[in-house]
Amino acid sequence: MQRKTAALLAGTLLATGAAAHAESEAEKAVEYRESVFHVIGHNFMPMADMVKGKIDYDAEEFATRAERVAQLARMPLEGFVEGTAGVAGSEAKPGIWSNWDDFRGKLEDLQKESAKLAKVAGKGDLQAIKPQFMAVGKACKSCHDEYKEED
Amino acid sequence: MQRKTAALLAGTLLATGAAAHAESEAEKAVEYRESVFHVIGHNFMPMADMVKGKIDYDAEEFATRAERVAQLARMPLEGFVEGTAGVAGSEAKPGIWSNWDDFRGKLEDLQKESAKLAKVAGKGDLQAIKPQFMAVGKACKSCHDEYKEED
Repeated sequence: MQRKTAALLAGTLLATGAAAHAESEAEKAVEYRESVFHVIGHNFMPMADMVKGKIDYDAEEFATRAERVAQLARMPLEGFVEGTAGVAGSEAKPGIWSNWDDFRGKLEDLQKESAKLAKVAGKGDLQAIKPQFMAVGKACKSCHDEYKEED
Repeated sequence: MQRKTAALLAGTLLATGAAAHAESEAEKAVEYRESVFHVIGHNFMPMADMVKGKIDYDAEEFATRAERVAQLARMPLEGFVEGTAGVAGSEAKPGIWSNWDDFRGKLEDLQKESAKLAKVAGKGDLQAIKPQFMAVGKACKSCHDEYKEED
């Protein structure tokens, strides 16, 4: 009986450990994807300010930031681990996982449009940049409207 | 006298507003650099596990993560805004700003070594990767030892 109790206790401890570990993995996934999007946002905002004329257009800075956003857009997908919608810090709606192909398609749109922006930004012509910058913004918004919890 | 009081009050409000704004900018800088390093760490760990043999070597995954770290290593510098050592969430020691050239040099070492790693990782030979992976780890550690608060 004592042995059975010990086995039961050990089993419970293992299960608790596993749950704690699972939770920690979920939190890691959320922190990862949120970090990627934070770095994207940080680089996106000065480009938006240049496009809007709020700050002077700096061709080199714009090209660097556009290149970064194109690189970063390829990083967050693995952070969208199923079952992590309700985890602290997450802004993801559960619909992401019930419409996974659509969600992934929207992220691929961002990858495509931001790669195009990086290419055009390298040429340093703000007038040519503007429509492609809008296309990137539209790709962001299209996904946020559907799959991001409102702030 | 009333006008003087009003002017004083307005001045105080402006100063408070300016301080609040400055704090917010500092917090943004810290969140940005911490996010970049978080994304670096997330991509670095599976490479470390492959090098140590804890998980199977996957040449394509390793190359992708090495490329990401090389890209990300070029992003955090602008987040090291002077006077942000004590801001919540910051792990930066004040010595960064009193030894700025040394700090920047260490970050440039990371940029160089991680670019080399991305290059060798693209060839898919783990034995050739190992020493260069160690060089990247050394670049990380060299800066952490000097300029990162211990966890």
